[in-house]
Amino acid sequence: MDVYRGTVVHCLRPQEMELLPDHLIGVENGQIKFVEPGERLEELKEQHSFTVHTLPNSQFLMPGLVDAHNHPSQYSYTGTGYDLSIQQRLEMFKIPTEAKFADIETARTIYQKAVRRSLLNGTTTASYLATVHLDSTMELCRICADAGQRVHVGKVNMDHEQTKNSTQHSVEETRKFIKSVREMKNPLMEPAVAPRFASTCSQPLLKALGDLASELAVPIHSHLGQQREEVTRLLQDNPSSRNPAHLFEMAGMLNSRTYMAHCVYTTEQEVELLRERQVGVVHCPNSNFSLRSGCLDVRGLLHCGVTKIALGTDVSGGYTSSILDAMRCALHTSKAVCFKNDGQHYDPLTLPEVLYMATMGGASVLGLDAKIGNFQVGKEFDALIIDTAAPCGNPVFDLFENDTNKDKVSKFFYLGDDRNIVSRFVAGKKIIV
Amino acid sequence: MDVYRGTVVHCLRPQEMELLPDHLIGVENGQIKFVEPGERLEELKEQHSFTVHTLPNSQFLMPGLVDAHNHPSQYSYTGTGYDLSIQQRLEMFKIPTEAKFADIETARTIYQKAVRRSLLNGTTTASYLATVHLDSTMELCRICADAGQRVHVGKVNMDHEQTKNSTQHSVEETRKFIKSVREMKNPLMEPAVAPRFASTCSQPLLKALGDLASELAVPIHSHLGQQREEVTRLLQDNPSSRNPAHLFEMAGMLNSRTYMAHCVYTTEQEVELLRERQVGVVHCPNSNFSLRSGCLDVRGLLHCGVTKIALGTDVSGGYTSSILDAMRCALHTSKAVCFKNDGQHYDPLTLPEVLYMATMGGASVLGLDAKIGNFQVGKEFDALIIDTAAPCGNPVFDLFENDTNKDKVSKFFYLGDDRNIVSRFVAGKKIIV
Ligand SMILES: [Zn+2]
Ligand SMILES: [Zn+2]
Repeated sequence: MDVYRGTVVHCLRPQEMELLPDHLIGVENGQIKFVEPGERLEELKEQHSFTVHTLPNSQFLMPGLVDAHNHPSQYSYTGTGYDLSIQQRLEMFKIPTEAKFADIETARTIYQKAVRRSLLNGTTTASYLATVHLDSTMELCRICADAGQRVHVGKVNMDHEQTKNSTQHSVEETRKFIKSVREMKNPLMEPAVAPRFASTCSQPLLKALGDLASELAVPIHSHLGQQREEVTRLLQDNPSSRNPAHLFEMAGMLNSRTYMAHCVYTTEQEVELLRERQVGVVHCPNSNFSLRSGCLDVRGLLHCGVTKIALGTDVSGGYTSSILDAMRCALHTSKAVCFKNDGQHYDPLTLPEVLYMATMGGASVLGLDAKIGNFQVGKEFDALIIDTAAPCGNPVFDLFENDTNKDKVSKFFYLGDDRNIVSRFVAGKKIIV
Repeated sequence: MDVYRGTVVHCLRPQEMELLPDHLIGVENGQIKFVEPGERLEELKEQHSFTVHTLPNSQFLMPGLVDAHNHPSQYSYTGTGYDLSIQQRLEMFKIPTEAKFADIETARTIYQKAVRRSLLNGTTTASYLATVHLDSTMELCRICADAGQRVHVGKVNMDHEQTKNSTQHSVEETRKFIKSVREMKNPLMEPAVAPRFASTCSQPLLKALGDLASELAVPIHSHLGQQREEVTRLLQDNPSSRNPAHLFEMAGMLNSRTYMAHCVYTTEQEVELLRERQVGVVHCPNSNFSLRSGCLDVRGLLHCGVTKIALGTDVSGGYTSSILDAMRCALHTSKAVCFKNDGQHYDPLTLPEVLYMATMGGASVLGLDAKIGNFQVGKEFDALIIDTAAPCGNPVFDLFENDTNKDKVSKFFYLGDDRNIVSRFVAGKKIIV
C-alpha cells in the first residue's frame, strides 16, 4: 500500500472546498483504502504495511481534473483564428482539418500532442469527441490507453447532405467502434455515442443511435444550444420539433448517461427536460466567450434543479485544454451573467463551486461519480500533487510569510499552471508525461 | 550598435497587427535607429558598425507590455479572497495590509516581489499606485530604478475622515514626493499625482492636487466609475456634482496627462468630457470581473472618440499582474458586452486591437507614445523576445508543421506565458529578472 501524507483539498459537496491539513490517503490496487488525520499514522501502521510518501509543506493533493468536452482533432489550430466568425472558422479550419483524419498518421501526430497536453494540464479524465473516421478514432483510443488517461471516446456521427455519410454506414461504424473499444478491455476507457449536433444528424440516425446506446449501455455525448443562430435554423428545418432538446428526446437519447456541451440557449422547457431525464451539462466557458456563443447561467441551472454540471475546454472552440482556465473562465462568465442582471439578487459562482464542477461535477456528468471526483474511501485514486513553491527552480507565483494553507491553495487556482502540477495519478498509477 | 534580426510584431495603427518577417532593428544608446528588411543587412553594414543578434525561427520581437494600473502594495494577497464582497475584501485585506506600509521593511519585501513579477510577465512599463506613505513609496521608486522598469509612481492621496490624513499634510507630502523622485534623475521614472478615488478626497484636496499637477507638470492617475454603488454614494455625498468626472473637472484635474482606471460606469456626459479633455482610460478587465464591477464597453468608448485606452492589471483587484491575461480578459469582456446587446451589430475587440491597447494604447495613456509602444525609428527600444518553441526544455504550447508565423504569434498571445518571454529590454538595456 502507498500512503500519501500532506494537505488534502477536495469537494464533498457542491459549495464547499474541504481543506484537510496533514492527512493520510492510503492507496492499494489503485483504490483509496483510508483517509485519516496524520496523527493516526502509527496506529494505521499496525493494521497495514505501507510506504509513506510525505509531501513537503509547499505541496497539496487534489483530485485529478475532468475535462468533459474536448475535440482533440481540433488541437492543431487551438490558439488561432478567434477573430473569425464561427462560420469562417468552420470553413477555414474545422472542415479541412477533420478531413485529414482519414489519414491515420496525421491523426496520430495531432492526437498524441492533444492527449499529452491535456495530461500536462492536470486532466486525468477527459471526454473526447473524435471525428467520423473509425480507424483514426481507434488510434486515439490506443494513444489514450498508452498515456494512461481515463477517457470517454466518441466517434462522431453525422449524415447531413454535405458530409456524404449514409445513415446506415454511420450506425454500423459506431457499432463496430463500440465493439473494438470494448475488446481493448481497458478499465479506464469507455466508448460514447456521439451525434455531432442535432443539426448534422437526420432523425432516423438519431433514433438508431439512441437504440444502439440503450442496447449496448453506452453514454451519449453531444452538443445542445451552443449558438443562437443554430437553434433558430434547427427549428426552421424541423418544424415538428418544439426545441432542439426535443429532437434528442424523440430519438430516445435523453437519459442519465447523456451529456450535452454548452446548453447556453435552452428554453425553460428544455431545462426541465434535462432535469427530468438527469442529463448532464458541460459548461465550456472559454469556448463560449471565444466563439461568441454566450454566457451560460450556471446558477440558473442549479436553481432549476439541473445539478450534474461539468467543465469542458471544448478545444479548439476554447483556446486552451486547461481546466484551471475553465474554472477561471467559469467565474468570469458567472460575473458577466450577474452584471446582465445588474448585479441584483444574483450570487455568482464561487471558487469552491467551480472546483466542484472541475472534479465531482465532471465525474457525475460522465457517470463516474462512484469511482472518482474526490477522495472518498472506495474510490479510485485519480489525483494531482500540486507544488505551490518553486517546482522548476522559479516560483510560478509568489507566496508570503503569512500565507495560510488556504491562501496557497487559492493562489494556485487563480495563478498556477502546469508547472505546479508535479505528479498525476490515474487509478493509483503515476502518469509519465 | 546592436542589431536584432528576426520576425517583428507590433502595432502602428489601432486595428492592425504588423508582422514583419526577417527584419532588422538597429539600436544605439537605447534608441531605434532603423527598422529594415533583412536583405538590407550588407548595405547597412557599410553605413554602421554593429553586432547582429539573429533570432532563431521560433522567436519574434514585440514591444514591451504596458500595465497602466497596478497597486503593488496589494500584491501579497493577489490570488486570494475573490469570493468576498468588495467591502469585505477592503476590510479584510486592503486596509490592514496598506497600514503595514508605514514600515519600510514590509514595503520592500512586497514591492520587490511585485516589481519582479511584473517584469517576469513582460511588463516593461508600469504605472504603480503605492500607498499614502512617503518613505515606502520612495522605496518603491528605488526598487523600480534598480530593476530597470520604466514607471509612473503615484503616492496615494486621501483625506476622508477614516484615513486621519489632513488635507494640507497630504498635499505637502505629495510635493516632497515629486521633488524626491525628480532628484533621482532617472529618465525611466515619472512621479504621478494620485488621488485614490474622488470619494476618498475632499474637494479642497482635489483642487490643491490639480494645482500641484499643473505647477509641476506631472500626470494624474486615479479611478473613475469602478462600481455602480460607489458612483451612487458619491453623488449622494456631493449633491452639487453632476457626476464623478465632474468632481475631477471642478478641481481642474482633467487634462491630456490624466488617466483614469476602470470607467465602467460613466454617463454619456462623462465620456464626452473624457474625450474633450483627452483623458486616458485604463481598462482592467480581470479586476472588473473578479471584483464584480462590470464590463467596460471599449468599442463604445472608441465610437465616442475616446481613443487613449490602455490595459491594466489592477493588482490585486485583478488576480494576476500579467498583461497577456489582461489582453485575453479584454477579449472575453468584449464578447460579454456583445452578448448583452444580443450580438446584434456589435463588433467585439480583436486580437490586434487588444495588442494595440497593451502596447501603443498604454504608451499614449501614460504620455509616452513618442517614446515607446512600437518599433518606430526614433523611439526607445522597449522590447520582448518571445520564444514560441521550447524555452525551458518543454514547450508551453504545441506547434505543428503547417503553423505559419502568424499562427505562432497567435498561439503565444492566447496560450503563452512568462516562460516564452526569453528577453526583456527597456531603453535598449537587457533586464535581468
Ligand atoms: Zn464542441
Ligand atoms: Zn485600482
